Amino acid sequence: MSVSDQVSLLRNMFDAAVSRAQPDRCIAQFLPTPPMGRTIVVGAGKASAAMAQALEKHWSAPVKGLVITRYGYAVPCERIEIVEAAHPVPDEAGLKATERLRKMVSGLSEADLVIALISGGGSSLLVAPGEGITLQDKQAVNAALLQSGATISEMNCVRRHLSSIKGGRLAAACYPARVITLLISDVPGDKPVDIASGPTVADESTSADALAILERYRIAVPENLLNYLHQPHSESLKADDVRLRRTEARLITTPQVALEAAAEVARQAGYAPYILGDSIEGEARDLGLTMAGIAKQAALRGQPFKAPCALLSGGEATVTIKGNGRGGRNVEFLLSLAVALNKLPGVHAIAGDTDGVDGAEEIAGACITPSTLDRAWALGINPRKSLDNNDGHGFFQAIGDSVVTGPTLTNVNDFRAILIDKR
Amino acid sequence: MSVSDQVSLLRNMFDAAVSRAQPDRCIAQFLPTPPMGRTIVVGAGKASAAMAQALEKHWSAPVKGLVITRYGYAVPCERIEIVEAAHPVPDEAGLKATERLRKMVSGLSEADLVIALISGGGSSLLVAPGEGITLQDKQAVNAALLQSGATISEMNCVRRHLSSIKGGRLAAACYPARVITLLISDVPGDKPVDIASGPTVADESTSADALAILERYRIAVPENLLNYLHQPHSESLKADDVRLRRTEARLITTPQVALEAAAEVARQAGYAPYILGDSIEGEARDLGLTMAGIAKQAALRGQPFKAPCALLSGGEATVTIKGNGRGGRNVEFLLSLAVALNKLPGVHAIAGDTDGVDGAEEIAGACITPSTLDRAWALGINPRKSLDNNDGHGFFQAIGDSVVTGPTLTNVNDFRAILIDKR
Repeated sequence: MSVSDQVSLLRNMFDAAVSRAQPDRCIAQFLPTPPMGRTIVVGAGKASAAMAQALEKHWSAPVKGLVITRYGYAVPCERIEIVEAAHPVPDEAGLKATERLRKMVSGLSEADLVIALISGGGSSLLVAPGEGITLQDKQAVNAALLQSGATISEMNCVRRHLSSIKGGRLAAACYPARVITLLISDVPGDKPVDIASGPTVADESTSADALAILERYRIAVPENLLNYLHQPHSESLKADDVRLRRTEARLITTPQVALEAAAEVARQAGYAPYILGDSIEGEARDLGLTMAGIAKQAALRGQPFKAPCALLSGGEATVTIKGNGRGGRNVEFLLSLAVALNKLPGVHAIAGDTDGVDGAEEIAGACITPSTLDRAWALGINPRKSLDNNDGHGFFQAIGDSVVTGPTLTNVNDFRAILIDKR
Repeated sequence: MSVSDQVSLLRNMFDAAVSRAQPDRCIAQFLPTPPMGRTIVVGAGKASAAMAQALEKHWSAPVKGLVITRYGYAVPCERIEIVEAAHPVPDEAGLKATERLRKMVSGLSEADLVIALISGGGSSLLVAPGEGITLQDKQAVNAALLQSGATISEMNCVRRHLSSIKGGRLAAACYPARVITLLISDVPGDKPVDIASGPTVADESTSADALAILERYRIAVPENLLNYLHQPHSESLKADDVRLRRTEARLITTPQVALEAAAEVARQAGYAPYILGDSIEGEARDLGLTMAGIAKQAALRGQPFKAPCALLSGGEATVTIKGNGRGGRNVEFLLSLAVALNKLPGVHAIAGDTDGVDGAEEIAGACITPSTLDRAWALGINPRKSLDNNDGHGFFQAIGDSVVTGPTLTNVNDFRAILIDKR
């Protein structure tokens, strides 16, 4: 294989992962048959407008609806209204749209069908504080939770119990209509209750749990919120709730499924694929060091993976910005990986954000080859200094190895693949 | 298996790794037959005093010698003198001992044998700047190198060419005696030239490489050092040098060998062992997140590793200290792993420094179990806060899960193992 063969294989793997995650590609097989009554489509999330567009394409029966997406994530729809609102901090636009959305599903009958299109980011777009709670109250609790050391799952538990739309309450508003929730997961574990705080699904956790979390982490919250959590109506819907009897949640795509699509492309090209994890997190630079260590073990000792092989992973890395370059978590990961591999022969890699935007720019990611460092030095670029300056995009654009896809209208988080050839 | 069974298996694996790395255990099979003439033992490194002690035990012929180790790392020897000096910044004690060591190997004949006992840390203990270079000059270059963005291998190249003992020059001083170098590796790749800057082995890199590195990274060095590097005597010894003809390097133990000893213990207990890497680096906390992602994939999806399995790794993690707790890189890794695993059933882990000292205390490391977080909470300890405070030792001592071995007198870096049971 020549160098460009490996790079084009990596690019094909990335494209296969993104394609497999696209609503238009995967929504059709999960759509229910049209009901006797009306069909209402609601939804919230970064991919939800694209999901609505895909639904319109594959849905021949009458339909109307309202879907809330992030500013800049709208796509043209004909029958379903798309509203943009703020993420990750909710705003008034989200609050108003959520109110309209709830009205749209009220007064339905058993003959009607609600299709809920839920994806990552929906938690802050679908915003309806419980009675007597203000948007400001919720923002204050969020800030305190983030500083408390509570886990994501604990934070979500508190949020679900201060909301009048999360934790199954949107489904309750639809009752007695049938509710089919179609989900694109961007969370570790892919649990529907964790995606956008589970507006249409049962919640195991209780108001008492939420109170215990506030106490455990010594989080001071306004008196009215504590009172709220002591009242029965703060409770989220449980699995045996009659209002959930006609609901069903279907994951239409997940990071794992996207990784498997890429793995299949690698397998067909003769590389044994290994998916190390679909939700691997951590500082991008350190993740690069760890993956370099694993790739070296495979390349130099043939264990635990024998070359030719492909090591795949998904999840969401983070970047602690210290420099002033142009970067993103995927290019930061790759630059660190390239420096740590130090031109190791036979190792190529790609990393990219499946939504097409790594960091703040319309660049999805990049590729590295054994010649990456030398090609940078030939242009007078010091790879380690670029890394220290968080300048991944600057670095890979200079050597012409950026990966640009344009907006993909979906999001199953980061995609990383390392190809290891036989020595 | 009960919880304590897994913890004791993990402890047995760690002990097997440490034991396999102990000079007393592994040195005998690598010793040459005694020579016709004299036997001189020299050496430098953190494990080198223990290597000398082990050699004395297994060597029946006459022997004398001098070995330099780090302050606090001396052990009693009868025939070989042990001198302590400073690490990682060289001091006068190291300078003087190195001079005495060199005199001891001068004037030898072909009938004589030098056994060099080399281990990690030897680079700063064995210190002899080239002619006209002061200890201060070398310290200044070191500081500039560390800030330059140069790789470890590039830094070592510069150091080898400013020394009159590294890069094969100690072997040259022994010529025409036979030189057997016994090494304990603590470096990625286990190349003898990288361990303690290779005082007795050939060096591929040249003075011209050293000058190119100084130029590439724009490192300003005193004029006398530049002049030195332009002179022929700055050149290290190459593989075809006649003075290296009677030398031989033998790795007596490595991180990989220690990991394999632990892997065998896991295999015998029914866990399929996978060594992910013998030189995995990165911030300990982020390494914990990555390994949690890989362990989850194995535990929840059975890929790429099927439970029951053991995921092993070595190398040297780092900790960027932000809090004021009592910690070390292994306990920091474990605490991060425990928080990220969030009580995942069937997953246990151990991590420890094979020298018995993780951080600054006489605690080698610790173990985690699915109940680690709950047992901490029961004592009122918030695991995430302990992690943010870099208080790994405080955390694991409080719940009684520290691993204490005492000084092991060897060092093959960190040891980490994660056991994953069938669900």
